[in-house]
Amino acid sequence: MSSSLLEQLIEAFRVLPGVGPKSAQRMAYHVLEREREGGKRLAQTLEAAVERIGHCDRCRDFSENTRCTTCASGSRDAHLLCAVESPADRLAIEQATGYRGLYFVLQGRLSPLDGIGPRELGLDQLAARLAEGEVNELIIATNPTVEGEATAHYLAQLARQHGVKPSRLTHGVPLGGELEYVDRGTLSHAFGSRSEMPQ
Amino acid sequence: MSSSLLEQLIEAFRVLPGVGPKSAQRMAYHVLEREREGGKRLAQTLEAAVERIGHCDRCRDFSENTRCTTCASGSRDAHLLCAVESPADRLAIEQATGYRGLYFVLQGRLSPLDGIGPRELGLDQLAARLAEGEVNELIIATNPTVEGEATAHYLAQLARQHGVKPSRLTHGVPLGGELEYVDRGTLSHAFGSRSEMPQ
Repeated sequence: MSSSLLEQLIEAFRVLPGVGPKSAQRMAYHVLEREREGGKRLAQTLEAAVERIGHCDRCRDFSENTRCTTCASGSRDAHLLCAVESPADRLAIEQATGYRGLYFVLQGRLSPLDGIGPRELGLDQLAARLAEGEVNELIIATNPTVEGEATAHYLAQLARQHGVKPSRLTHGVPLGGELEYVDRGTLSHAFGSRSEMPQ
Repeated sequence: MSSSLLEQLIEAFRVLPGVGPKSAQRMAYHVLEREREGGKRLAQTLEAAVERIGHCDRCRDFSENTRCTTCASGSRDAHLLCAVESPADRLAIEQATGYRGLYFVLQGRLSPLDGIGPRELGLDQLAARLAEGEVNELIIATNPTVEGEATAHYLAQLARQHGVKPSRLTHGVPLGGELEYVDRGTLSHAFGSRSEMPQ
C-alpha cells in the first residue's frame, strides 16, 4: 500500500466535476471531521445509484426501472415530444415550464469528429417513435451551440419525413438581462428577428 | 419510497462543503453519464475511510492506525512540536515548509460559546506531552483569528508552565501581494512591526 486511505479518498473525490486537488482535500477533511454519517450515506447511495440507475427504454432518460415515471405516467400529453441533449436539460425544462408532454433524451449531440452519430443518439429509436403516428409536434430543445444547431436541423428533417411538425425554442435577449452584457450573436439575432409590439 | 434513487443521490452530495442543489445535481449527472467506474471507487473509498480513519493517539491527526506515520517515524526532530488547529493546516505547513519536527492537531480552537474548551482540544494530552521534557519549543500555528489568537495565548501559557519556549508565526504583508489590497489590520501590524533592512 503506497498511499494512505486519506490520500486515496482525496484522489477519489477528483472524479467529481469541477473538483481539483484543493477542493478534494477540503471535502475529505470536511466529511471526516464533521459529516461521517452523511459521508456514509453518500457512499451507499452513490454505490447503489451507479449500479442500479440505467436508462428508460422509451425516452433514454436515467431511470431505475425499464420505463421512467414520466413515460409510464398516463397523464402526460403523448402528442407532444421534446428532444433534449441531456437529463439535466430535461430537468431544467420540467422545472421552468408547465410542459405536460413527453421527452426524448439524446444523451449527447451529433459530433462526427467524436464518433457521435445518429446511432449513438438513438435516432433510429426516435424515428420509430415518430412513425407510430401519435406525436404531432417535435419540440427540439438542443443547446444553441454549433453542434446543437446541427443536431436540431437533423431532427427537424427526421420529423418532417414522418409528417411531424418540428419546432425550436426561440432565441433572443434573456429576460432580466442588460443589452450591454448580451453577446453580439444573440443581440444581432434578437435585433434581426424583432417583432411588432402588441398594443 | 417517496423520492427516486437519483433524487436521493443529489441530496446525498449536499453533505459536501460548498455543494448546493445545482452542483449536487451536476455531480450526480456527471458520475452517471461519464464516471460510473470513478463513482464506484469514490463510494467504496469513502465508506472505508469513514469507517477506518480515526485519530493518531499521539498527535490527534487523522490516521488509519493508532499512531500516524509522522509520529511513528524515527527521523523527525522530537524537540520541536507544532500546534495547529486542523489536519488541513498541518498538511499546508508540511507542504510549504521544510519543517522536520512533530505536530499536535487541536482539531478546533478555544470557543467557550460553542462548548469547546481545553478538554475538547486535548490540551491535557498536550500538557502531559510537554511535561515529558523532550520538547524544547512549541510552535503555535493556530489561525490569526480572534479565537485562534486566544487559543495561542492559552497554549503559550501552558508551554511556559512546563519550561518550553512558545513561538508564533510572524504576521505581515503576504509575499507577492499588493499593499493596496492588503486588509487594514494586517497593514497596520506590518507597518508597526517594521524591521531594519539588512545591507
